Amino acid sequence: MHYHVLTLFPEMIEQGMGTSIMGRAMEQGLIRLTATNIRDFSTNKHMKVDDYPYGGGAGMVMQAEPVYRAWKQVTESIGYKPRVIYLTPQGKVFQQSMVEDFAREQDLVFLCGHYEGIDERVLEEVVTDYVSIGDYVLTGGELPALVMMDAISRFVPGVLNNEESAEFDSFHDNLLEYPQYSRPAEWMGKKVPEVLLSGHHANIEKWRREQSILRTLQNRPELLEDAVLSKKEKQYLEQLRRNMAQEDPSPCEK
Amino acid sequence: MHYHVLTLFPEMIEQGMGTSIMGRAMEQGLIRLTATNIRDFSTNKHMKVDDYPYGGGAGMVMQAEPVYRAWKQVTESIGYKPRVIYLTPQGKVFQQSMVEDFAREQDLVFLCGHYEGIDERVLEEVVTDYVSIGDYVLTGGELPALVMMDAISRFVPGVLNNEESAEFDSFHDNLLEYPQYSRPAEWMGKKVPEVLLSGHHANIEKWRREQSILRTLQNRPELLEDAVLSKKEKQYLEQLRRNMAQEDPSPCEK
Repeated sequence: MHYHVLTLFPEMIEQGMGTSIMGRAMEQGLIRLTATNIRDFSTNKHMKVDDYPYGGGAGMVMQAEPVYRAWKQVTESIGYKPRVIYLTPQGKVFQQSMVEDFAREQDLVFLCGHYEGIDERVLEEVVTDYVSIGDYVLTGGELPALVMMDAISRFVPGVLNNEESAEFDSFHDNLLEYPQYSRPAEWMGKKVPEVLLSGHHANIEKWRREQSILRTLQNRPELLEDAVLSKKEKQYLEQLRRNMAQEDPSPCEK
Repeated sequence: MHYHVLTLFPEMIEQGMGTSIMGRAMEQGLIRLTATNIRDFSTNKHMKVDDYPYGGGAGMVMQAEPVYRAWKQVTESIGYKPRVIYLTPQGKVFQQSMVEDFAREQDLVFLCGHYEGIDERVLEEVVTDYVSIGDYVLTGGELPALVMMDAISRFVPGVLNNEESAEFDSFHDNLLEYPQYSRPAEWMGKKVPEVLLSGHHANIEKWRREQSILRTLQNRPELLEDAVLSKKEKQYLEQLRRNMAQEDPSPCEK
């Protein structure tokens, strides 16, 4: 996987990818990163890349031509037109189900805006995917690009070792993850749940699944609509719902 | 605002906050950042902070005691117990409406997990807010902490200058932002919409609002349920919906 990031802050991208698991994957050549400074493609003698918005209003808008030239250099260097992701609150909301799709690409271009955004005309010309990492506003597209590269890289073969396996993660079967415990068995008077010390694998698995179902019901009940549950687990969920309804005796008064 | 980040990768946090608008805000003393390495609080002679999960399974779990000690040092240094945000896919999904609430705090602690998470018992002991930045899985909590600090810092007085004003951003009135254009008036044969060159402020404002409504309808129709619209804008939205229904003549065949 080769990531090409078009940005005004290439050092932020390089530093953000240089640490921990991503840094290791780059050293091993499993992923490549080219951060391109859009400012290098300015057509202005002061190296400006932004100007006032037509129609007025606060903020500056990144101009079309420098972005277009930066993109053109990428397409010429790799010899084809790859997918171009523009990070924007106006985009489709990023979800785990989109990760594997992006992870299959050979090259991905991330276009990071700053200020009040980028001239609409160059977006129409080069962008293939408008993506938002969530319903909040950030100072630029660099952190969202790092977030997406991190999520996608986990699915590039070899990036995660066995101990970091992506298989049993959160959102597996659309459930939140169960609680985890490590040594010591007692800490500040709090004991690890006994079943986890039992060595009885079927019971452990059952307990963990039930904890996942409970947590999902408590924190993100809307995920349960698409959860993959066995018949017994569905019964467990119904029981939980009945218990919760009893604890809150006036569900009709809403 | 003073951010305290508990992490295994403090350099990633420091570098991520050192650039662009956040870097400027730190230089100006508007925000402060203390990144604390949890590993410095290891109780193990090899400075280990993780161990196998009770009950088995892939991955390692961060142990309770080093996290607890790192948190304790923060509370002792500031003399009270501030809110502690644990970044986790199990948390409440971060949204713009939560930003102003966090921005009112004097101190915020971000706890970043790695591997398969953190021992549940220390989370129960110290965490006040479980937050997820979106429904996707990342290699650690560092990028989510940076994302939250970026979004929150925009609301710390003085961090944004007038040109970066947070007032007219996306999600204002629950609508997506309108398209932006800057010089030149014609680029690659594409012209800036004429109304934006007219100098007629009321018409420009009307056009922008309508573009926002159109975009929201096309990309994120669910946001419109809580959108703040004038009577005329509601009529415009109804007209758009009728046009879309006509373009798709078989809405019942779904």
